[in-house]
Amino acid sequence: MQITANDPSRKSWLNVEKGCDFPIQNIPFGVFITKDDIITIGTRIGEYAIDLGAFHQLGYFDGIPLTDDMFMQDSLNDFISDGRKTWRLVRNRIADVFDAENSTLRDNQKHRDVIIFDVNEVEMLLPINVGDYTDFYSSKEHATNVGVMFRGKENALMPNWLHVPVGYHGRSSSIIVSGTPIRRPHGQLLPMGETQPIFGPSEKLDMELETAFVTTDVNNLGEPIGIDEAADYIFGMVLFNDWSARDIQKWEYVPLGPFLGKNFASTISPWIVTMDALEPFRCESPKQEITPLPYLQQKRTDNSFDVKLQASLETENGDLNILSESNFKYMYWTMNQQLTHHTVNGCNVRAGDLMGSGTISGPTKNSYGSMLELTWGGKEPITLKDGTTRTFFNDGDNVILRGYCENEKVRIGFGKCTGKILPPKYNHSK
Amino acid sequence: MQITANDPSRKSWLNVEKGCDFPIQNIPFGVFITKDDIITIGTRIGEYAIDLGAFHQLGYFDGIPLTDDMFMQDSLNDFISDGRKTWRLVRNRIADVFDAENSTLRDNQKHRDVIIFDVNEVEMLLPINVGDYTDFYSSKEHATNVGVMFRGKENALMPNWLHVPVGYHGRSSSIIVSGTPIRRPHGQLLPMGETQPIFGPSEKLDMELETAFVTTDVNNLGEPIGIDEAADYIFGMVLFNDWSARDIQKWEYVPLGPFLGKNFASTISPWIVTMDALEPFRCESPKQEITPLPYLQQKRTDNSFDVKLQASLETENGDLNILSESNFKYMYWTMNQQLTHHTVNGCNVRAGDLMGSGTISGPTKNSYGSMLELTWGGKEPITLKDGTTRTFFNDGDNVILRGYCENEKVRIGFGKCTGKILPPKYNHSK
Repeated sequence: MQITANDPSRKSWLNVEKGCDFPIQNIPFGVFITKDDIITIGTRIGEYAIDLGAFHQLGYFDGIPLTDDMFMQDSLNDFISDGRKTWRLVRNRIADVFDAENSTLRDNQKHRDVIIFDVNEVEMLLPINVGDYTDFYSSKEHATNVGVMFRGKENALMPNWLHVPVGYHGRSSSIIVSGTPIRRPHGQLLPMGETQPIFGPSEKLDMELETAFVTTDVNNLGEPIGIDEAADYIFGMVLFNDWSARDIQKWEYVPLGPFLGKNFASTISPWIVTMDALEPFRCESPKQEITPLPYLQQKRTDNSFDVKLQASLETENGDLNILSESNFKYMYWTMNQQLTHHTVNGCNVRAGDLMGSGTISGPTKNSYGSMLELTWGGKEPITLKDGTTRTFFNDGDNVILRGYCENEKVRIGFGKCTGKILPPKYNHSK
Repeated sequence: MQITANDPSRKSWLNVEKGCDFPIQNIPFGVFITKDDIITIGTRIGEYAIDLGAFHQLGYFDGIPLTDDMFMQDSLNDFISDGRKTWRLVRNRIADVFDAENSTLRDNQKHRDVIIFDVNEVEMLLPINVGDYTDFYSSKEHATNVGVMFRGKENALMPNWLHVPVGYHGRSSSIIVSGTPIRRPHGQLLPMGETQPIFGPSEKLDMELETAFVTTDVNNLGEPIGIDEAADYIFGMVLFNDWSARDIQKWEYVPLGPFLGKNFASTISPWIVTMDALEPFRCESPKQEITPLPYLQQKRTDNSFDVKLQASLETENGDLNILSESNFKYMYWTMNQQLTHHTVNGCNVRAGDLMGSGTISGPTKNSYGSMLELTWGGKEPITLKDGTTRTFFNDGDNVILRGYCENEKVRIGFGKCTGKILPPKYNHSK
């Protein structure tokens, strides 16, 4: 089925400013609550949030096989579970109805009143009910930087890294939507040179500049998914900030991996941009230095996507300081390889599962995706516009991730993924 | 509120054989499907499965504030979310109705016909919809044994182990109910002495003899739970076999922890035994060698439970070979400490989350909870009744965990947690 929604010549009768992340060619999916307290699945064009529950109820999806309440839900899981054919039919239809040439909805003010909202008048909610969240570790630059800092140059990459798309399980319950504040976590910390831990608020609160992909129902338990099929099961992508408390992490993580240093919060951007919308931005990933085992060998070479990524820090005076400019295309392992590897032992994947890329660092210092790398373990502080410095984040800092693809014809973006850091609060009964 | 259901002098008008895990004092909770394809929450007395959906509909819970469909569900999550007061009212009422002195249901054959089933005529389902699954590593004997094998005697316990109830995140999607077969997983394996991995079925498929506890809604994101409150949020316990492919695990697990070596399957016993039912079996846990940080210090000393655990192997000829006899009371860190630690950074816990103990090994060799330890890394094979030997498990092996508490008056058990190993199957498109 053709992805007619992607036609770059299309224009919408809804106004879209130049440089906007959400032209009619994007049509991402999210969940929002209107000022009348209605929760619905929606999409976005320009600065408009579109209520797909109302859109469906008023017949604009007629002819597409969809359950009546498909979009009147508080998560995208059921829609995602319907599979790629449904996603395409729905995106194509939305593009048709909002196409500048189509007057049906445009000229029906009553319908417009219940379908179209100013995006600032709705509150974005978490778009998926995350069953399981996995985080990979697939940027060679990031793995190398962290390795050099922790183990020295000679042992930077672990022996498995070039063979295995290394990943681990994260916490689903603390995945939150962009805009939700982050409470600085308490935990056990080992002061420099000591052998006994102390208890206190993290002093090394960090971001991780990542993307994540959302899966549909992939397989039954015990049934691996081949590399050539993996892409069929990826619904779309979001920006992802996998907040990390480096001091808590450092003390706790041996031998079973990060736990409380990570699971206090992970923020995702509210609009899931479909893989269909990203299709025009396919590109090659870095050449793999060691031929992977056959189950990870891909037929196509253009399995990555040219998504420009940026992390910035907004201080309380409103200054915006760019911290990092990276790109998804730096990823060594592709999403297809990650998903295939994840199921190769028979592990089952469900609709709404989230798989993080791991921190995406590029080759140059200004493209590193974490403060840990940008300040080289805190040794090289960053000076901000207001003259203050940062090694890790301060209370009150607002961390903003952005991401977009762009060619001569169209820009497809993710919007923002933000989180402001609140001071620590510890209210235990002592 | 008194836990009248626990009265050891009670007898039921339903027959309970001596030595049965499910006397009227147990009243565990599970989910099953009847031969008429009705899915319901239920409990068990003796060899009878009791349909609590029908029980409720016929008025036997009258006077207890419960939604109409509380038990006509395919998971216990909503019931668990109702909290301890509801759990107690419900257990007490069930005990009253099935008490030998109470003739109301006993003498109503029509009601008995729709409420009471032979336990062999129903199929047990997964009792909870697991939001997040965490596995701890809280048996000092297990951590030491593994440490000695991997790093030598001097560095057996990591420096953090006596300070931190070490834990990590596992996979929820592959948690399965007792009786579900286990497909031997494929994965990357590093042959002895080689530097390049190969791909193939795991040759070191192992069990982990564990228990797990199920939580109710504990806290909001950002709000830690104090050690004195933790017990209020634990609903009950199950037996838990956290299947492990040691060869896959060994190659993949640095630096972020176990992943595909674990997430192909974890089996739980179908009946959740409530903490209320286990109350008479409280006991002290091992004295902690280092005073933990204040947030982990407990007022009571009897925070453990005397639960006898057993792992055995049934070969295809029907022989039952006991592999290990351990006990939950060997656990160094208590469940309260685990749960408090888990939330100390503000991580939120939901109803139906599952937290594994980690492999529970005792002080003697016959109490080790994994084949890795029992055969000391495969160096000391176990000889079975049929004359064959095992280092790890063979295809066709049926691994059975059992657990029970017993005093002079009553025995409260968990039934069985079983899984039979199926031969590997790899059906990738090459």
